[in-house]
Amino acid sequence: MIRFECDYGEGAAQPVLDLLQKTNLEQTPGYGEDDYCAAAAEQIRRLCDAPDAAVHFFVGATQANLTVIDAALKPWQGVLCAETGHIHVHETGSIEATGHKCLALPATAGKITAAQIRAAVQSHRANPSHEHEVQPGMVYLSNPTEVGTLYSKEELTDISATCYDLGLYLFVDGARMAYGLMSPANDLSLQDYAALCDVFYLGGTKCGALFGEAVVITNDELKEDFRYAIKQHGGMLAKGRLLGLQFLALLDGEDGSGCSPYFTLAAEADRQALSIREAFTAKGIGLLHDSPTNQQFFVLPDAWYEALSRQYAMSGMGKPDDDHTAVRICTSWATRPEAVAQLIADVQKL
Amino acid sequence: MIRFECDYGEGAAQPVLDLLQKTNLEQTPGYGEDDYCAAAAEQIRRLCDAPDAAVHFFVGATQANLTVIDAALKPWQGVLCAETGHIHVHETGSIEATGHKCLALPATAGKITAAQIRAAVQSHRANPSHEHEVQPGMVYLSNPTEVGTLYSKEELTDISATCYDLGLYLFVDGARMAYGLMSPANDLSLQDYAALCDVFYLGGTKCGALFGEAVVITNDELKEDFRYAIKQHGGMLAKGRLLGLQFLALLDGEDGSGCSPYFTLAAEADRQALSIREAFTAKGIGLLHDSPTNQQFFVLPDAWYEALSRQYAMSGMGKPDDDHTAVRICTSWATRPEAVAQLIADVQKL
Amino acid sequence: MIRFECDYGEGAAQPVLDLLQKTNLEQTPGYGEDDYCAAAAEQIRRLCDAPDAAVHFFVGATQANLTVIDAALKPWQGVLCAETGHIHVHETGSIEATGHKCLALPATAGKITAAQIRAAVQSHRANPSHEHEVQPGMVYLSNPTEVGTLYSKEELTDISATCYDLGLYLFVDGARMAYGLMSPANDLSLQDYAALCDVFYLGGTKCGALFGEAVVITNDELKEDFRYAIKQHGGMLAKGRLLGLQFLALLDGEDGSGCSPYFTLAAEADRQALSIREAFTAKGIGLLHDSPTNQQFFVLPDAWYEALSRQYAMSGMGKPDDDHTAVRICTSWATRPEAVAQLIADVQKL
Amino acid sequence: MIRFECDYGEGAAQPVLDLLQKTNLEQTPGYGEDDYCAAAAEQIRRLCDAPDAAVHFFVGATQANLTVIDAALKPWQGVLCAETGHIHVHETGSIEATGHKCLALPATAGKITAAQIRAAVQSHRANPSHEHEVQPGMVYLSNPTEVGTLYSKEELTDISATCYDLGLYLFVDGARMAYGLMSPANDLSLQDYAALCDVFYLGGTKCGALFGEAVVITNDELKEDFRYAIKQHGGMLAKGRLLGLQFLALLDGEDGSGCSPYFTLAAEADRQALSIREAFTAKGIGLLHDSPTNQQFFVLPDAWYEALSRQYAMSGMGKPDDDHTAVRICTSWATRPEAVAQLIADVQKL
Repeated sequence: MIRFECDYGEGAAQPVLDLLQKTNLEQTPGYGEDDYCAAAAEQIRRLCDAPDAAVHFFVGATQANLTVIDAALKPWQGVLCAETGHIHVHETGSIEATGHKCLALPATAGKITAAQIRAAVQSHRANPSHEHEVQPGMVYLSNPTEVGTLYSKEELTDISATCYDLGLYLFVDGARMAYGLMSPANDLSLQDYAALCDVFYLGGTKCGALFGEAVVITNDELKEDFRYAIKQHGGMLAKGRLLGLQFLALLDGEDGSGCSPYFTLAAEADRQALSIREAFTAKGIGLLHDSPTNQQFFVLPDAWYEALSRQYAMSGMGKPDDDHTAVRICTSWATRPEAVAQLIADVQKL
Repeated sequence: MIRFECDYGEGAAQPVLDLLQKTNLEQTPGYGEDDYCAAAAEQIRRLCDAPDAAVHFFVGATQANLTVIDAALKPWQGVLCAETGHIHVHETGSIEATGHKCLALPATAGKITAAQIRAAVQSHRANPSHEHEVQPGMVYLSNPTEVGTLYSKEELTDISATCYDLGLYLFVDGARMAYGLMSPANDLSLQDYAALCDVFYLGGTKCGALFGEAVVITNDELKEDFRYAIKQHGGMLAKGRLLGLQFLALLDGEDGSGCSPYFTLAAEADRQALSIREAFTAKGIGLLHDSPTNQQFFVLPDAWYEALSRQYAMSGMGKPDDDHTAVRICTSWATRPEAVAQLIADVQKL
Repeated sequence: MIRFECDYGEGAAQPVLDLLQKTNLEQTPGYGEDDYCAAAAEQIRRLCDAPDAAVHFFVGATQANLTVIDAALKPWQGVLCAETGHIHVHETGSIEATGHKCLALPATAGKITAAQIRAAVQSHRANPSHEHEVQPGMVYLSNPTEVGTLYSKEELTDISATCYDLGLYLFVDGARMAYGLMSPANDLSLQDYAALCDVFYLGGTKCGALFGEAVVITNDELKEDFRYAIKQHGGMLAKGRLLGLQFLALLDGEDGSGCSPYFTLAAEADRQALSIREAFTAKGIGLLHDSPTNQQFFVLPDAWYEALSRQYAMSGMGKPDDDHTAVRICTSWATRPEAVAQLIADVQKL
Repeated sequence: MIRFECDYGEGAAQPVLDLLQKTNLEQTPGYGEDDYCAAAAEQIRRLCDAPDAAVHFFVGATQANLTVIDAALKPWQGVLCAETGHIHVHETGSIEATGHKCLALPATAGKITAAQIRAAVQSHRANPSHEHEVQPGMVYLSNPTEVGTLYSKEELTDISATCYDLGLYLFVDGARMAYGLMSPANDLSLQDYAALCDVFYLGGTKCGALFGEAVVITNDELKEDFRYAIKQHGGMLAKGRLLGLQFLALLDGEDGSGCSPYFTLAAEADRQALSIREAFTAKGIGLLHDSPTNQQFFVLPDAWYEALSRQYAMSGMGKPDDDHTAVRICTSWATRPEAVAQLIADVQKL
């Protein structure tokens, strides 16, 4: 069985393991107050052109999401997100467990718009009983989205300006940040994220690390005492250096051209995904979502689905009709060229 | 600077890194539903002689503590613990953040007693306004305690019987379990823990793993749907196998005689700690706490403290009087014999 | 200005005030442990034919809703409700503030169906990643609904059987219970509610009391320690007797025929509402919702809206198109016949 | 049985009931947005000499406490209070249920000091691991305290200055405010409270109202969006006017000289309490706490306790030794002179 069902099925890019091994018996202070975390944070600030940003490392994305959102919102505030947003549907109510409601908006291609955000806030404020409703306090996006699509620079700029105008924080979940940045369809840079968001993160777990997400806070209001929030939610890793080390390895030698493992591995995964997509569409297969990144969504005739399932693990995405099954196929930093070639060959034979 | 200030200053025991490297590019399902986690859980069940126990892996202890406690308690229940308990004083109110109060009891040598537990519950129940107080629902201990001391089998048996009688859950935080089990002063086995507790854990982070705690649930009432609780609090590691793999490496070949890395490394750390203790006490230095495990607590004359601080990192524990400074010195699975020898030599010279 | 915009614009039915005055200087124990609360609870148990039910009094409905739901659910569970449900849209995220997600279902005429509930639960359980979603643990309905409509006995029986089959609790918010029970369209009795629900309440605030809701718990699992939950959320009134007294006054002499103030006042309000409805529909005015209870929803031409607004306070319900404004008109236990007659006369003149 | 065990055993002062009756059928907007609430708030602002204060009415004290504290604190902050503080021991963990820890300090005569507060905060800030502890964010006092004692103006001024200096909010629970203000031992005025506290309240429930507490917010940081917090916790009374009306009745005609029912009734209750105290101490009975307000605490020989218990309800306060029983005796706005005279006569006979 070759697994294409997710982008977290393997361990880590080799430079990550090498650096963990190399530094293994060094003694450092705990809880992220070591030199490796400091160096990794500095590297990220440099790449974001955000010298004053606060950078904090988390083990995983759910923990990062709930900590950032809980730390930023007043008790009566909620977070606007796509109805397909990860925090709304895939995290077991982790945001609600911190006391905050997800205010879900209809999504188009996995995305929400500045106009939707403005309408939701205006509707809330225009309601004479607005104190009986949850107050929108933040916008949560993921980019790439849950369905692999990308916000353009224009879209993110509009959303950012709207949030600023309305007094909302803008938070971008970048669990698949590297795949987004390296997609041919992308026109956003890390500097753009830093300039447009109040807080966002560069995902490590799905992009070459064993685990880890690097949260970048650019808004001063959100910086103070953030480490308390991390600790309170159980997110402060005792051997915090493990997170700094991994990002150091992934971003080693990065000069802004995408030359480090973080970016070169993602670029290759995107290329693989698009070649798989081409193979399917060449055979007339429809797309469930039109994604330019490492996740691809196909609507397969059931017979095809059955045939491919014997050899390939894919994520089921439901049955759009009686004769078809939708699937997600992911590539990742670890996807072997031979696996892609074999899948493409098998598709071509169908 | 040689660091003795904690037991999480290095990476992991070499077999852990080796196994991570060896399995790095294998593809497995995520979120702990892989064969390595299954095998590690089975190994732990075997060592605990608890074939029906549920075993879940967490990245860290704060996360494990808050998830277990929140999952077990009714909203109006609190958790009885020592006033020095980690959840009460060192976790930024993580238990309260899930809505539950820590009901702190005075501690003697870091421990609480069955009699204290019974008195607290009886006092609550006898109060005609008991509904205006938090209801005790669980007892939380750590063993070894925060100050390195150990509950004896008799003490834990008494507490267990009291909890059973009163309808309280008993939860033992075993962040330093290995150091406790291997101490010459210990008379408890993993089977005892499994028989006496409703839920407890074997710490990995401080005992040879990069990170990880293995929570063992023996009470059926606490097993159902526990994975929802893990996910909700952000504790479900995407590449869950990393946790299973580490415990497999640490418990590899374990036959109950303490022959695996988990136990042999801890036994050596305990020996080192006791030799350091002997060096200090031979010089007439007093003990802040009388610990038979890898944490040692000394009351140093200030001049000694200053002299030693130049070369050794120790944890400050306050100033008991104007002329003395209390310190904690920890050994761990990673402590080098040369470092111990040097410290002892330097102490002898003072 | 004559106010028809809600059913809580006045104080209380006179028998309520009379009884408060009559008993004013009596001394009773606090926190609901007095004889008046005991007598009111007994009267309610008798009317529900539920001798083992637990009855608890709350000051208001939001407090009752959040306390019942929080006490019943596991931390990772959510509550299924209509997307128009009061807890989802009008209570400032009070359920989420206790850590639980509202799982909103599309509503038809303000109602959800047994089939929707079953589909939602089955979809959750069929998801191999169900632990990443909130687990449905309870169904919340209001009857009458937010839009004045009623669940029939058949509908409620279906929902109850479905909940029982799926292991969900069924909770009915009866803030307007009296108006529902006395509607000509109703076929449910208090005994039916007690037999079909795990927990429900008889609203007092909108049905003749100064304030107060009487929560009836029939499921033994939900009875234990419920007073802790009330106190913890700040819902335990010091002079709890004020709640018992009000329900005693409203249900005084009730023999099951609807002869007490609680029911006679609601029956008259329903009659008034239906006569207003008849006046509007006779003039060709459309209904926003087809309600047989004390809330009526009309789609008025803007000119009508403007004309009526000069004399009558109504609740705005948005503009369905450029030329119309939707409004809610409520009668209540306090609505004067002259006010109704004047409104009807004015409508007939338009 | 004559009840002296608490100060909430009766209904309300007659002017309260009269005003409720007089306005009963008036129609007003709901949720505290009516003219009566506005007038009561204005009266309170005038008495506090705090024209910019926000005034919000709550049904009860637990609700007021948890809402104020939750609204003011960051998620990782806790509230410093006396170990005997109501929020710490008598409210079923209501503060913890909102996610915040009570940071209890040892109390002397029910009070904590500016020095204790400063020491606690300095100790926290000096801890290099302070992020692993709950951050103090607020000081909660009650005045009169749980044991009837009073903070002097000097003490409250010191605490206020310390809080200001350390960046903590100061919150005073005034559930028994009237009894404090009218005590002969008091040197604080409402203007002092407004000048020294960030937020405090005037209790109604124990001081002549059926129920109700008037929260006065003087710090601008705490004013914004506070009504959301009230609604979210279920504290927004539908017929909010009931609260405004009661405070209007109690403060009617108040010109700062203590001439309104709120103050005259409390002054009489204090006098009654002190005459009871005199009767006991004249017989050589010891005081458990030395209170100059309406709560008195005596240490009775068991025989006395048994004799008095046959006729008088008192609150048991435990047995300080084998031969004595401690009791609380409360007077209130409703205490009849004959009841006091009878008790005194019976004491003199013992």
